[in-house]
Amino acid sequence: MNFESDIIRLKNSIDTALNNIYDSGPNIIREPIYHILSGGKRIRPILCLITSLALSGNIKTSLDAAVAIELLHNFTLIHDDIMDNDELRHGNVTIHKKWDESIAILSGDAMLAIALVKLGKIDNKYQSIVNNKFNKALIEVCEGQALDLEFQNKDIVSKEDYLSMIDKKTAYMIGLSSEIGAVLANADKSVQNKLRYYGMSIGRAFQIQDDLLEVISDKDKMGKTLKSDFLLNKKTYLNIQAQLVDSNKVNEYINIAQEKFDVGFNLYKKFLEDNNIINNTKKVIDDTLMLADSILDDINMDKEYLYKYTQLILKRKS
Amino acid sequence: MNFESDIIRLKNSIDTALNNIYDSGPNIIREPIYHILSGGKRIRPILCLITSLALSGNIKTSLDAAVAIELLHNFTLIHDDIMDNDELRHGNVTIHKKWDESIAILSGDAMLAIALVKLGKIDNKYQSIVNNKFNKALIEVCEGQALDLEFQNKDIVSKEDYLSMIDKKTAYMIGLSSEIGAVLANADKSVQNKLRYYGMSIGRAFQIQDDLLEVISDKDKMGKTLKSDFLLNKKTYLNIQAQLVDSNKVNEYINIAQEKFDVGFNLYKKFLEDNNIINNTKKVIDDTLMLADSILDDINMDKEYLYKYTQLILKRKS
Repeated sequence: MNFESDIIRLKNSIDTALNNIYDSGPNIIREPIYHILSGGKRIRPILCLITSLALSGNIKTSLDAAVAIELLHNFTLIHDDIMDNDELRHGNVTIHKKWDESIAILSGDAMLAIALVKLGKIDNKYQSIVNNKFNKALIEVCEGQALDLEFQNKDIVSKEDYLSMIDKKTAYMIGLSSEIGAVLANADKSVQNKLRYYGMSIGRAFQIQDDLLEVISDKDKMGKTLKSDFLLNKKTYLNIQAQLVDSNKVNEYINIAQEKFDVGFNLYKKFLEDNNIINNTKKVIDDTLMLADSILDDINMDKEYLYKYTQLILKRKS
Repeated sequence: MNFESDIIRLKNSIDTALNNIYDSGPNIIREPIYHILSGGKRIRPILCLITSLALSGNIKTSLDAAVAIELLHNFTLIHDDIMDNDELRHGNVTIHKKWDESIAILSGDAMLAIALVKLGKIDNKYQSIVNNKFNKALIEVCEGQALDLEFQNKDIVSKEDYLSMIDKKTAYMIGLSSEIGAVLANADKSVQNKLRYYGMSIGRAFQIQDDLLEVISDKDKMGKTLKSDFLLNKKTYLNIQAQLVDSNKVNEYINIAQEKFDVGFNLYKKFLEDNNIINNTKKVIDDTLMLADSILDDINMDKEYLYKYTQLILKRKS
């Protein structure tokens, strides 16, 4: 057993399943679906599979659910990209830019439908419990996106409200991934719940890290533009702290960036450094991932790959 | 038993269930959801319930599924209204016009999520079969809408292609309604299938009648504007026949309507009358509804309300 090669092997299983996920149907939804599925790190389905394996489950039982989760995730990406008017996703042009908004709305809807069909393939004895958890996650992610939109019209958002929003929008679905992995490995309910909290903690760290990477990495690595987020005054873990320190200054930098993006954005970046916001954020990510690992402490399972997976996420540069 | 009062009673049960379908959650999705749910004739869920009753099923078993179908239908309305840029729905302003496109996309997504949660409430023994049929219908309706969009860029669409499109976009979900009613009344598989074909035939007639009413009724009765459909060269049962007779003339009328809507539209209407297209369409609706009724002939069930329901749809003026 080798972690890196096993992760690649799991990713390949997922990619193979996705490669012929929707081979009939009208071109104007089939092509966009394959377009967006051509990119992505498969973080969620891999987490689902390694959780199952860690609890002595098997890939055969959990692969359909893992693939359904990746499809659910991509459904949210397509629609979020329209709402946020993003131009790039996974380094490729977004669907609503490459085609148009109608096609993007519809491809997203079809992606979700395909996810549900895939979910219908799992073992009958798990159908009801997995469906309920999946549907709950779908509501959470819609509500998270709704809060994200609401926050764009607010100057000040508290850290608690921000964390509650990213827990719904991002963390819940990552928590779903590890939880479903536990369910399909036939784990106890208490273990399922712990695995959900584990995944949610990773998800929270992952989103805060995403917020951080938008500022400190260059856009090529992130595979999406940060421009729209900054100009829309989108709330991030860094932005809400900056707004708390000096909301006038942040708004001034955004205004400058409307005219000259680099000038405004560099002023903002310097402000984050001067106020120790970047270092604080790094610390919060580390702490949250340590918390995630500690949730696993008293579960009787093979934790090695999960710990390593946490580290893999922590070390990502894009 | 009285048909009219029983239909009202069933509609009230559905409306009562919808009245508190989503009472938590962010305002920017809760308000649009209740906004669109305030209108509508509940044709699909009522069909589901009277099918169950006709097969000696009971409302208690089928109400959750009926409500889920109505929510699924409203999800499609919200997204279709964005794609078609419609301004009115059920006589009210559409969500994307009253709020904005992001809120409409997200409210639609949340509506579908709520439908799935509602579906999860039905009796466990029917979960798997109903979910599979529901998911299949969701894919069909996405594909139908995709074909509808594709057809807007074509001058000529054959009658066969058009019927295949409306079967997916409209008829399939009405077929789902009666089929699920049969499933939840514990009917045989062959009866379930017949009820699906029955509902699909009604659905096809219903859509052709919709196309007809857009031309012959005034817009207040229809509760939506026909303007956008005509100007977008949207294919209807009447439009495709008109295009086959003289495509240049139809395009000329659309061009005139871009400047002066009433002038162009009245020329188009006269063209439909002169070429007997309106009368032919009325005949096709009658024939299709007769076919629907004939599918029920050899099923041992109490058909009275279904026959009456078919007539109710046939006689609607909006």
